[in-house]
Amino acid sequence: MIEIFTTGGTIDKVYFDALSEYQVGPSAVAAILRDNNVHAPHRVTQLMRKDSLELTDDDRAAICQAVAASEAARILVTHGTDTMVETARALAGIEGKTVVLTGALQPATLKHSDAEFNIGFALAAAQTLSPGVYVAMNGQVLDPSRTRKDREAGRFVAD
Amino acid sequence: MIEIFTTGGTIDKVYFDALSEYQVGPSAVAAILRDNNVHAPHRVTQLMRKDSLELTDDDRAAICQAVAASEAARILVTHGTDTMVETARALAGIEGKTVVLTGALQPATLKHSDAEFNIGFALAAAQTLSPGVYVAMNGQVLDPSRTRKDREAGRFVAD
Amino acid sequence: MIEIFTTGGTIDKVYFDALSEYQVGPSAVAAILRDNNVHAPHRVTQLMRKDSLELTDDDRAAICQAVAASEAARILVTHGTDTMVETARALAGIEGKTVVLTGALQPATLKHSDAEFNIGFALAAAQTLSPGVYVAMNGQVLDPSRTRKDREAGRFVAD
Amino acid sequence: MIEIFTTGGTIDKVYFDALSEYQVGPSAVAAILRDNNVHAPHRVTQLMRKDSLELTDDDRAAICQAVAASEAARILVTHGTDTMVETARALAGIEGKTVVLTGALQPATLKHSDAEFNIGFALAAAQTLSPGVYVAMNGQVLDPSRTRKDREAGRFVAD
Repeated sequence: MIEIFTTGGTIDKVYFDALSEYQVGPSAVAAILRDNNVHAPHRVTQLMRKDSLELTDDDRAAICQAVAASEAARILVTHGTDTMVETARALAGIEGKTVVLTGALQPATLKHSDAEFNIGFALAAAQTLSPGVYVAMNGQVLDPSRTRKDREAGRFVAD
Repeated sequence: MIEIFTTGGTIDKVYFDALSEYQVGPSAVAAILRDNNVHAPHRVTQLMRKDSLELTDDDRAAICQAVAASEAARILVTHGTDTMVETARALAGIEGKTVVLTGALQPATLKHSDAEFNIGFALAAAQTLSPGVYVAMNGQVLDPSRTRKDREAGRFVAD
Repeated sequence: MIEIFTTGGTIDKVYFDALSEYQVGPSAVAAILRDNNVHAPHRVTQLMRKDSLELTDDDRAAICQAVAASEAARILVTHGTDTMVETARALAGIEGKTVVLTGALQPATLKHSDAEFNIGFALAAAQTLSPGVYVAMNGQVLDPSRTRKDREAGRFVAD
Repeated sequence: MIEIFTTGGTIDKVYFDALSEYQVGPSAVAAILRDNNVHAPHRVTQLMRKDSLELTDDDRAAICQAVAASEAARILVTHGTDTMVETARALAGIEGKTVVLTGALQPATLKHSDAEFNIGFALAAAQTLSPGVYVAMNGQVLDPSRTRKDREAGRFVAD
């Protein structure tokens, strides 16, 4: 079974007209898996609902704790892209698990979003990669220790 | 580099009002990779543009030939779902290459399509799996020799 | 109250993978009105579910009968575009009612469809125009007696 | 010819990942008309690009001036929904023109947006209504002097 932890981020941003702004909403990943008829057994757990620029050390500790405590050998974490590498590096100590972090540069609610493609890509990566921690963005499997987000280019690059 | 061969299928069906019908159109995969900012080097070659129920033995031979002749070690083939397993089995003899077949149950032109998710999933599978031939549908990596399409359920299942 | 009669047409075409083809499905207009938070009182009645090239004289008579018998002064008819003008001309005799026919050149299920725009346009036309029969397509209110569909151009033009 | 003035608002909000936020972007209406194959002659002029809560008295004066100076008899104004009624009331003095204000509660860039429906609806209203100033939202033509936006209900209601 694939364990999926959601933490928020752009992928889950929803527009609230009454507030005239975008806020992180319910996670998009469960609906994406359902809409794409994914039958691989999986469980989705929301850990928090934050823009990744607002994640605290306590939040990162909670993410690490959840991943370490999971009985699953294969874990997907959806996360904001701005500090995805930081969280991935914090997960480096965990052994015996394949952990893949992904997210999106454009909210899943947008007509043109990379959310569905990224979730599909990351799900396959989580199913096939040997144990370790990976960032899966822009159609690439990346080593967090040698990756950073290039904000202007809108993609992740090797450091 | 990932070599991508397109053969047609539902994923590429486009509605032509002047004909009052749906026909296989230009392949959707190149646009999907571009729209999702995929920088992994890749090349897309259209082999044919057919509903997979209409593929002939010559068509299958052409697909096998293109895959065998490719210098790439990792190959993605987009294909109609109805005879995807048949083509995958025809590719079984080819060695030293990771070949992943995928497609979609709903055309990429539809609001609700599994095309983007499946292409993302299959691309990761092509990048990570060891040499062999695989069908990637419904968020699962499947062994063609033990897989069939369940038309009523709208998914691929183990035989 | 706006009375809405649906007859089928491209606007309502849905892709059925198990049949490998597109067929006229449930009408899209009710969902479009709901999704766009339309509170103007309205009722939707499906008269038939056909491609307009397949409408018979009996079908047209049934459409005329339903429109004539309606107590509503303002009526919207969704219809295939190929013979929309023909049906509009058949409705010419009916008095005291504003009847607007519309449809779409691309099914509502497509990412790029004119369905929502056309329904919005036609709804306003039905609410504001004086009694008579009109075709509302391509952002224009057209007189059916001097209009035809230009298939190549994908639009309706003055005859 | 239909004169179209754009002022910003939710309809034109675009997500900028590099800024981690939504901002009013280029107007959506020109693309909506093009994508829906609208051949009715029209011109689109961007007056400003603001959330309507940020429009100043000078902005409103500029909008009134542009509408008054236009040679067109039929004018569409796209506008944020929060102060659409206020701007509509400011336009009340202008004679001999049909002026319709519309916008959207969800940005045009969203999968589920009322933008296309509203633009279609408002365009028809602009083409058919007699001179005066109107608010066109939620599938209704409303008199600005007796209308307000109900933020919780996400719609415009009679006062």
